[in-house]
Amino acid sequence: MTDSIRVLHYGIGHVGGEIARLVHRRPDMTSVAAVDADPSKIGADLGMLFGDDAWGIFVSPDLKSALQDAEADIAIHTTGSFLPQVVDQLEELIEAGLNICSTCEDLSYPALKRPELARRLDGLAKSKGVTIHGTGVNPGFIMDKFVLAISGVCQEVRHVRVERIVDASKRRPPLQLKTGAGLSPEEFLAQTETGAVRHAGYQEAVALIAAGLGWKLDRVEETVKPIIATEPVSTDVLSVEPGQSLGLHQEARGFVAGRPLIELILEMRVDRPEGYDRVVLDGIPPMDVKVIGGTHGDRATTAVVVNSLASVLAAKPGLATILDLPLALGWGV
Amino acid sequence: MTDSIRVLHYGIGHVGGEIARLVHRRPDMTSVAAVDADPSKIGADLGMLFGDDAWGIFVSPDLKSALQDAEADIAIHTTGSFLPQVVDQLEELIEAGLNICSTCEDLSYPALKRPELARRLDGLAKSKGVTIHGTGVNPGFIMDKFVLAISGVCQEVRHVRVERIVDASKRRPPLQLKTGAGLSPEEFLAQTETGAVRHAGYQEAVALIAAGLGWKLDRVEETVKPIIATEPVSTDVLSVEPGQSLGLHQEARGFVAGRPLIELILEMRVDRPEGYDRVVLDGIPPMDVKVIGGTHGDRATTAVVVNSLASVLAAKPGLATILDLPLALGWGV
Repeated sequence: MTDSIRVLHYGIGHVGGEIARLVHRRPDMTSVAAVDADPSKIGADLGMLFGDDAWGIFVSPDLKSALQDAEADIAIHTTGSFLPQVVDQLEELIEAGLNICSTCEDLSYPALKRPELARRLDGLAKSKGVTIHGTGVNPGFIMDKFVLAISGVCQEVRHVRVERIVDASKRRPPLQLKTGAGLSPEEFLAQTETGAVRHAGYQEAVALIAAGLGWKLDRVEETVKPIIATEPVSTDVLSVEPGQSLGLHQEARGFVAGRPLIELILEMRVDRPEGYDRVVLDGIPPMDVKVIGGTHGDRATTAVVVNSLASVLAAKPGLATILDLPLALGWGV
Repeated sequence: MTDSIRVLHYGIGHVGGEIARLVHRRPDMTSVAAVDADPSKIGADLGMLFGDDAWGIFVSPDLKSALQDAEADIAIHTTGSFLPQVVDQLEELIEAGLNICSTCEDLSYPALKRPELARRLDGLAKSKGVTIHGTGVNPGFIMDKFVLAISGVCQEVRHVRVERIVDASKRRPPLQLKTGAGLSPEEFLAQTETGAVRHAGYQEAVALIAAGLGWKLDRVEETVKPIIATEPVSTDVLSVEPGQSLGLHQEARGFVAGRPLIELILEMRVDRPEGYDRVVLDGIPPMDVKVIGGTHGDRATTAVVVNSLASVLAAKPGLATILDLPLALGWGV
């Protein structure tokens, strides 16, 4: 079809690869180019990297070579969580005239922690007539867009609480390790301070909820603690002794006029909890919504990114948050 | 504030009245006029009708007199479920240059049953530069927008099932009677045929889901049956003997390529079931979302309408469905 969305994949790691496979299945999108820094992938056919037939798209080491033989409408950017690490990549993509949909957690609401960078990216995107958007399952859905969607049935909202409990024992190895499972409390603490053990984008979700509901935040607090094992637990990837961490308990609280009106709680743990997501709004009417079994993180992030492409392309130029875009709709097959 | 939304209330029955009270509480909106056909309300002060202080807004018998001393941006229209009954009112509002947000269930997706009327209203609204939108809790949220919001985390959706179980024993008398509770099976059947016992807007919700997911519907089927009591049940309003109806069981199914891919199930019954709403998407990932305790219909309809006003005003002129508008956001207090 002539109006197929032409996608450049910038980053084809675990999530970037799953995204490329989904784009390949969609009749309304076409993968046209791919960039990755991994020497083992450069030059490879994208389809064959995924065990599929050849797609005729080869992984380029940089944007310039990727765009030599291809024209793209939008880049799907999946190389990092923190804006300072990826801002050069984003600027290069914008300069090349590409719209961007990124899994960079900071980019979901960059005005919070990086207002200067946010203004710079917004200005550059406007000058180039492109839109840039950061999204995924969280931030991007469970703890912000889903909450705000539910808030639409409330005449007023007085308090927001979201819980996300993830059974990390079934997840891929890097994600299990990122929960801090198997660490002593001291090791856990040290790793939360480097950011190795911590889920990114939590404070951004608080800020998105506040902006959506019209609350002016005084401040956002965030804590990360280990959940200590009392019995031994093991997974395919790691084992936990009593006294070591089963995973992380992370909280973010947004204060409005001195009161914590937004509370987000995440647990990612390997002792096989029953996973779920839950949104509890104190309001008129009150709402208590549970995602039974939870929302699979990587699969959902892949979906949210791909389902958002059309609305990113249709949006006004500049930096767009979930507050600026219409619903990302699923694909009925 | 100077950019306060100026609201004309067209219909101040149960839901229209709750809407007026909410608009009155909101700092970003102002009630400027009210129209109702009820002789007992005409001439009354709107606030005093609700047991409040005088608001200085008096109920007018018709639009012309309501607009004699007031200028409004948008009309909130709450006088009926079926388009043929209210189309003259809608046209008069459009001719007066008012945007419209209506609880008319047919208007949530009028192209389904009334394509001619839909085209006429769309054309008239465009010619007058106003937007018209039909919404509420259902259609407008639980069985369409909420479903589509959740679909955004799915890479693909293969089947949609929504259940809404309402404990009607606690609801206002007209709503209890509308469930058909206390009727014999024969009386129930007769009343479903007149439309007295039936929830409006079900087929529209099916059509909205299909349009959002990109499914082309072959047809929509709808059935309404009584739920037969085996024990006596009574509420403040009515009593049910064994063999009579406890309420209604209504189903709508949307067929795509011959298969029922969308199934909506509503039960409104007076035997005090545990109310809930549930959305089950067969997809990647699968999603199973439950609103514990359910969503209060009248309160939520009030909220959805009021929360939608800003996006109706910002939308392109013409007929807009939930697919055309951004998220209706709650009001944080």
